[in-house]
Amino acid sequence: MLIISDYPSKNFTEKQLLYLSERIKGGLGLVMIGGWGSFVGLDGNYHKTPLADCLPVLMQPSDDRMNISSPCLVSYDTHHQIIEGLPFETNAPVIGGFNAVQAKPRAKIVLNATVYKASKVNHPVEFKIGKSYPLLVLDHCGLGKVVAFTSDVAPHWVGGLVDWGDERISAHALGANPVEVGCDYVEFFTRMIQWVSEN
Amino acid sequence: MLIISDYPSKNFTEKQLLYLSERIKGGLGLVMIGGWGSFVGLDGNYHKTPLADCLPVLMQPSDDRMNISSPCLVSYDTHHQIIEGLPFETNAPVIGGFNAVQAKPRAKIVLNATVYKASKVNHPVEFKIGKSYPLLVLDHCGLGKVVAFTSDVAPHWVGGLVDWGDERISAHALGANPVEVGCDYVEFFTRMIQWVSEN
Repeated sequence: MLIISDYPSKNFTEKQLLYLSERIKGGLGLVMIGGWGSFVGLDGNYHKTPLADCLPVLMQPSDDRMNISSPCLVSYDTHHQIIEGLPFETNAPVIGGFNAVQAKPRAKIVLNATVYKASKVNHPVEFKIGKSYPLLVLDHCGLGKVVAFTSDVAPHWVGGLVDWGDERISAHALGANPVEVGCDYVEFFTRMIQWVSEN
Repeated sequence: MLIISDYPSKNFTEKQLLYLSERIKGGLGLVMIGGWGSFVGLDGNYHKTPLADCLPVLMQPSDDRMNISSPCLVSYDTHHQIIEGLPFETNAPVIGGFNAVQAKPRAKIVLNATVYKASKVNHPVEFKIGKSYPLLVLDHCGLGKVVAFTSDVAPHWVGGLVDWGDERISAHALGANPVEVGCDYVEFFTRMIQWVSEN
């Protein structure tokens, strides 16, 4: 499986990108995680690469970053094993931003990001619903499963999602700083990776 | 002026902490910015130091970290020059967490953090108001101005606040990574620092 996260396309050679797209069509799973260096972003620029054909989303021709200061809710769209049983409906997490993409016609949108604006001009606080954007999109490309998660797994775009869940989970990878995150965050990304890995 | 941000108290000697508290009483401004290494936090532990007498807030006896996965709104409490004209009322930003403290009796709470829970059990999304906590607290300690900002200036606790404002501002400090943030975020922290610096 190939996970690309905040890794500008210019870091690959054209030959490598062609090779990867062929491998995906042959059955290699692909996950692209959003960020300033993913999809189009500031310097992702994947819209100009052979991976654009593999990804389950259509990209804009220029900077697609959405940095959201107001509440941006993760909302459930279609049932899928990746999100089954997770409390998206009863305790929706917020994210801090995402790449604005469009799902390809036959791809499946599992989660959306919905932007709200909170104002207290008339007390109490009013939450006005704004636009929704695809957040978790699944598809196949040839024999490979392909996933677009348009927010990030890490700050700052991951937002409150990183702390989602009543239990805390601590981990310490060799050579990295220790982390402490929410259990539902861990469960969600674990399931996403499991789904892409299954044949 | 002294700004302490995510700098565990164990990094100071007892003598240094006493010296700093005397300097503050003599007129040195103090800002403490929240984080896992601020106030009590995971390893801030300022409740056991001489700075506890200077800070405008009372600290808990143990871990005061609040990592919030749901919408956590910054809300206006009392008028003050630091927040004058900033759109807290018409476009409230969200934060990702804070240290849970209590304002000292004579201190001034300017901003609160209010936790909401978003659920879609009954369509449309319902935002249920939860607890509020002091976010920006001002006071004097002797001749020094003292400020507690219990969230962070940086991810992940800063949340959407870092992107607050319609205009983007880019900066690049020598030896650091370039940053791009919202104009209202910059204005807010600039004003906070200005207020502490004024005699």
